Amino acid sequence: MANLQNFLQERQNLINNFLEKALKPKLLNKTAIAPERLWQAMSYSCLNGGKRLRGILCLATYEAFKPNYLAVLPIAAGLECIHAMSLVHDDLPCMDNDILRRGKPTCHIQFDTATALLAGDGLLIEGLALCLQADELNPQIMLKIMPEIMQAIGANGMTGGQSIDLENTNKNVSLLELENMHKLKTGAFLKASVLVSAMAAEATESQLKALEIYAEKIGLAFQIIDDLLDLEGDSAQIGKTAGKDLAQNKATYPKFLGLEQSKEKAQNLIEEAKLNLKQNHIYFEPLHQIADYIIQRKK
Amino acid sequence: MANLQNFLQERQNLINNFLEKALKPKLLNKTAIAPERLWQAMSYSCLNGGKRLRGILCLATYEAFKPNYLAVLPIAAGLECIHAMSLVHDDLPCMDNDILRRGKPTCHIQFDTATALLAGDGLLIEGLALCLQADELNPQIMLKIMPEIMQAIGANGMTGGQSIDLENTNKNVSLLELENMHKLKTGAFLKASVLVSAMAAEATESQLKALEIYAEKIGLAFQIIDDLLDLEGDSAQIGKTAGKDLAQNKATYPKFLGLEQSKEKAQNLIEEAKLNLKQNHIYFEPLHQIADYIIQRKK
Repeated sequence: MANLQNFLQERQNLINNFLEKALKPKLLNKTAIAPERLWQAMSYSCLNGGKRLRGILCLATYEAFKPNYLAVLPIAAGLECIHAMSLVHDDLPCMDNDILRRGKPTCHIQFDTATALLAGDGLLIEGLALCLQADELNPQIMLKIMPEIMQAIGANGMTGGQSIDLENTNKNVSLLELENMHKLKTGAFLKASVLVSAMAAEATESQLKALEIYAEKIGLAFQIIDDLLDLEGDSAQIGKTAGKDLAQNKATYPKFLGLEQSKEKAQNLIEEAKLNLKQNHIYFEPLHQIADYIIQRKK
Repeated sequence: MANLQNFLQERQNLINNFLEKALKPKLLNKTAIAPERLWQAMSYSCLNGGKRLRGILCLATYEAFKPNYLAVLPIAAGLECIHAMSLVHDDLPCMDNDILRRGKPTCHIQFDTATALLAGDGLLIEGLALCLQADELNPQIMLKIMPEIMQAIGANGMTGGQSIDLENTNKNVSLLELENMHKLKTGAFLKASVLVSAMAAEATESQLKALEIYAEKIGLAFQIIDDLLDLEGDSAQIGKTAGKDLAQNKATYPKFLGLEQSKEKAQNLIEEAKLNLKQNHIYFEPLHQIADYIIQRKK
């Protein structure tokens, strides 16, 4: 995986550098006073050493078809802003009430709850605005991509999944209901990170379909590993509070399937994801390696 | 103002009917379970008899240049979703902690705080997605409009203004600082409601400039009247908690200028706004009447 580590590191750096420049106040006029504290909270929450999985999937998918993957760098960075927003809002006292994220105090602990709420709103809007900066793309394609992203993160996607997750707390849910919730909460956005990039690269219908299945399978595997890390990892290593699912009596894969069978299911999903790419002649190595990385990760 | 009442009512109905159809779950696939409660909270917060000022300004501005104003109806409706989002988040316990909005319990009182947080996120994303549905517009123009809206509502606009408002609480601020805060918090979005529609209608540079000044002036007058209503109105009539600014020790126009001078300033701004339109040969009557309506409103 040495090559993959370089590949990931290079793209993380690209995304982080882009975000560092983007996440600064740009005022409408010179006399206005900048909301400095808000931008600080936004940078704090977005520039904190995340894996950048969604952004990297976006860059790698584009590169599987076209060499100039910098064309979708604004989208990759925008997706990471949106992801950061979802974490900031998810950590708030009225939601998961978490104090630790990537090994540091969560946004509302470091700043305050109101600022964290607004920082989330700001990151969401800025994230979508960054996506629109990918001006090397054809306008018609851009106007197809934006609704895809919004559908994936809105009340029919990620935000809807968070709402179902809330409703599921302390309720007996079936494995099917659990999978449905994850399809919305994490699956839809992860899938969009792959799909919109493939659309941007003008992939064919059958390639899009193959990538859709790939993204669905690695997304589900990602969630299973998340559940396992919460159960088996320690807070220092995973950078967030471990053991939270048990404490909150949440439905998880290990709870339904046990540890061993959960690991096996995740492994099978990864194999299926990779096989599906090959069967559709998508051989770009990093996409295969990222699938492996998803179940080998320790945080 | 009889004609204006009809004009406003017709356009409120158009926007409300559009939103009623739009604010329903649209699932990614048939097996998924819809986040019903979230969509209920979104509809509850958005379909509650608001004035629809931003949406109506959007429709009226377009009609000042082109007859087929239905072309921007998705944008008008989208702007109202975004406005509803700002109210839902503003009312949350960590922000203004308000229990009454348009004469009904606020979203977090009717549902719960976590659902209100997510409903705001959902309305924001859905609002932007609705704007993108204005597919009669030229794609190039659409790609200019979307960043304008995002700039106006994000951390450099409305969200930034809310953050500055928080920082100003219990602090001695100058009249200049108060105006700066309002320029971001309410001014930028109201201005965008006019400007993006003028851009959609392909107004000339000088027309855009005239409408920008018009929108800035009516936006500021709107805020002064808001302060006066908070001070002089009663909760039943204005549909939200009156006297809040005093209770929260907030800087307001009447506090700086007194009642009479505040009213006079609002009136002058409206006259200047209308004069500016006339001097630039924008005679479309409803835009002039809406300016008058802004200072005559009782809620």
